Amino acid sequence: MAQVSRRSFMQLAATLAAAGAVPSRPGAAEPAVPEGPVSGGSQPGAGVTHLLARWLVSARYEDLPPQVRKEGVRTLVNYVGVAVGGSHHETVDIAVAALSPFSGPAQATLLGRHERFDIMNAAFVNGVSSHIFDYDDTHLKTIIHPGGPIISALLALAEYHPVDGKAFLNALVLGVETALRIGNAVYPDHYDRGWHITGTAGPFGAAVAAGKVLGLDEERMVYAIGLAASQPVGLRESFGSMNKSFNPGRAAANGLFAALLASKGFTSSDAMIEAKRGWANTISTKQDYGEITNGLGEHYEAALNTYKPFACGIVLHPSIDAAIQLRNEYRLTPEAIDHVELKVNPLVLELTGKKTPQKGLEGKFSVYHAVAVALVEGAAGEKQFSDRAVQDPTIVSLRSRVMPVVVPSVKPEQVDLTVVLKDGRRLEKHIEKAVGSVDVPMSDAALEAKFADLAQGILPPAQTRRLMDLCWKVETLPSAGEVARAAGPSLS
Amino acid sequence: MAQVSRRSFMQLAATLAAAGAVPSRPGAAEPAVPEGPVSGGSQPGAGVTHLLARWLVSARYEDLPPQVRKEGVRTLVNYVGVAVGGSHHETVDIAVAALSPFSGPAQATLLGRHERFDIMNAAFVNGVSSHIFDYDDTHLKTIIHPGGPIISALLALAEYHPVDGKAFLNALVLGVETALRIGNAVYPDHYDRGWHITGTAGPFGAAVAAGKVLGLDEERMVYAIGLAASQPVGLRESFGSMNKSFNPGRAAANGLFAALLASKGFTSSDAMIEAKRGWANTISTKQDYGEITNGLGEHYEAALNTYKPFACGIVLHPSIDAAIQLRNEYRLTPEAIDHVELKVNPLVLELTGKKTPQKGLEGKFSVYHAVAVALVEGAAGEKQFSDRAVQDPTIVSLRSRVMPVVVPSVKPEQVDLTVVLKDGRRLEKHIEKAVGSVDVPMSDAALEAKFADLAQGILPPAQTRRLMDLCWKVETLPSAGEVARAAGPSLS
Repeated sequence: MAQVSRRSFMQLAATLAAAGAVPSRPGAAEPAVPEGPVSGGSQPGAGVTHLLARWLVSARYEDLPPQVRKEGVRTLVNYVGVAVGGSHHETVDIAVAALSPFSGPAQATLLGRHERFDIMNAAFVNGVSSHIFDYDDTHLKTIIHPGGPIISALLALAEYHPVDGKAFLNALVLGVETALRIGNAVYPDHYDRGWHITGTAGPFGAAVAAGKVLGLDEERMVYAIGLAASQPVGLRESFGSMNKSFNPGRAAANGLFAALLASKGFTSSDAMIEAKRGWANTISTKQDYGEITNGLGEHYEAALNTYKPFACGIVLHPSIDAAIQLRNEYRLTPEAIDHVELKVNPLVLELTGKKTPQKGLEGKFSVYHAVAVALVEGAAGEKQFSDRAVQDPTIVSLRSRVMPVVVPSVKPEQVDLTVVLKDGRRLEKHIEKAVGSVDVPMSDAALEAKFADLAQGILPPAQTRRLMDLCWKVETLPSAGEVARAAGPSLS
Repeated sequence: MAQVSRRSFMQLAATLAAAGAVPSRPGAAEPAVPEGPVSGGSQPGAGVTHLLARWLVSARYEDLPPQVRKEGVRTLVNYVGVAVGGSHHETVDIAVAALSPFSGPAQATLLGRHERFDIMNAAFVNGVSSHIFDYDDTHLKTIIHPGGPIISALLALAEYHPVDGKAFLNALVLGVETALRIGNAVYPDHYDRGWHITGTAGPFGAAVAAGKVLGLDEERMVYAIGLAASQPVGLRESFGSMNKSFNPGRAAANGLFAALLASKGFTSSDAMIEAKRGWANTISTKQDYGEITNGLGEHYEAALNTYKPFACGIVLHPSIDAAIQLRNEYRLTPEAIDHVELKVNPLVLELTGKKTPQKGLEGKFSVYHAVAVALVEGAAGEKQFSDRAVQDPTIVSLRSRVMPVVVPSVKPEQVDLTVVLKDGRRLEKHIEKAVGSVDVPMSDAALEAKFADLAQGILPPAQTRRLMDLCWKVETLPSAGEVARAAGPSLS
């Protein structure tokens, strides 16, 4: 397969963008399905699948801007931390018990655990672990959590099919880029309808990342994308059950499955994203194909990935940020607080309106609990969404005095929080953008602290330190699978 | 888990039907997710998932009417025949090569082949094999091919988890019934939008069939259904590529995966079919929940399954039936034919309008080839859709003289076909319902002939005979997995 030069690709893309569409199969030597009832050559977005695949096949590590590489590494650090952190949750224990009798050879690490599974079952389990705490990375424009589906597939494959750190990071970034761009093309309609977009866009990213490691040519990358398009995962109705974490796990496995089949010549359509009865038209009422192909190699959505400082849905982060800031500024104690007033975006009560959570998981869907625990404990990590925390009498008492009011003009990333003290004072905090957003990113040090907190009790401190170091320096590793192996059984 | 008596169940269903809806969690001792943002207690169809699961858990082999049992056995016979027949196609060879390094223990037979895979990979491969020739069973109301997803999961599991023949057939029928009822609830909108409905309804059936073998209680059956709902497979855009056969295979594996996880306590929503952001609302613009719950245990969609006498899409069957009948009645030879006129439903040219197929697979999307080969060879089995057949000069010549005309008043199951002879005579044949339809079913003998034709060259004749016999008498087997083992490597 000949490489397409970056320059000629850009010229092609510019020409196509100017024309408002791309030709049906640019440069493909021979279309796989030359005629018939399926292909939509004159459809909007025609050629998108091939154009995307062509860019992916030609894109090299050396082409990645430094800040994109850096964000890719941070995505890896955050992913490994949350996957290790979630790895001993009941959800994961059940999945491992259910799948153990059927797993193939011990090819890949279950991060944070002693078992090893074949790469597809490992990708599933690690994807589940990564989402357990709702603490993973987030592309704020689409609410996609790309690390789970993409790195779970890529890292498992890297243990079986050795790949150096630079190629690994390139595959990671390209996988994330693919999932986010495809997500942009259909968000918000697709998500509003009910799809868990991490599970539907995720398989594309997982297939592409694995496909890069496997060295797919353009035709087979098109097939990998097509087989990924055939396997969307997850409905929002499952939120609040183990099924939510299932979705990024299965998305990882599905994308890896797609790439492995395509690598051996298993065919799909050559226009699966954009065809009349392809993915975007079937799964969404909105299709903005320019989001997929405009500025490839120039603008990187992957650089917009963010990491949660708090172990719950992003919608609660402004409220928690405000509560922690006020607590620390005024050295607040629960006894001093009469009640708390919040002006919040409507999504806050739609998604997190649970007033009396009984279990830790339910606490993540309760703005009342989140604000109360943040004021009492000054944190909102996984420990603050445990059964212990939601049943703590001090927190239970305070949460009953948390009074959110929906104000449609308040944006999702904003909050106005007022702590009213028993002495009558009103302490106010406005959050314009919460910590962890694109504009107020978590620092590398904060990512490390989050990682260490998550790994505590699962890995020995020395192993945690080594694992973090391997993640940070992944680009220098001769074999990136070393990262996964370092998250397995402790040798100490 | 207490059994619900048939009588009390019917009373409940009648009460609910009269009320126009069912309570959110009828009889569930304790809802899994007691409150929060997900459940839609007052939504249309509320309670459907639980009601369906309750019936499935209580439904026994002894409750099945004799004709339903009989059709279940015929579904099995047809499935095993087409899966063996497709088992050495390039598509299957590629899938087996791609998956071999990752398969778990040799738990289950790849029908017609010597390899054995773990049950999930085997379910996938057998599902692919079953759809290779577009020759599988069809529920004509929805164009669902239920055997592929459901029996591929069930039969693989039966080799690992022994189950007697009666329980096996009961699971088969209940799986088929579930997939078809859920398909009815969303067809045709769901299919029109672009979903390959066999791959989207299929996982429900596979999960239910496997769930029956695993003895799931109502709560876990609800979870199995929910995890199946999370994994729809397949877009119509992939038709004409290997990806089409991928879909029933992956649907089988997904349903089995769902049941295995649920059997260990992996949770999902308790209203995944009908909730506001559940399956039916997310995946279709039509939701007729009565199709799922009305007349459970009284009316069986599974009894409406049909089997293709011809190895191509159902839309071509009336034309082929007419051509073969005329050929046989008049002992027609190609030399005598000037041209052929057809009046067809619009779908015929929409789906099978390919004029000059070059490969066997493309021949299945060509009404021109199908009519020509039927007139020349008097058959339309897999051999008539080979590369040899579409390149045969006599057939190529005749197909150029096949002249279909779209007549909207002609129903999909009808055709008016006229062979115009060189001597000027016009031989006419009207088909009201093609052979293989519900009203003109294939005979048991014709099913056997189809099976034997498909197995020829793959299994020795004596093994084929024994395998067919085991399928016919499956209800008497102490362990139904014997059927699968009998389709593996020949012992003779």
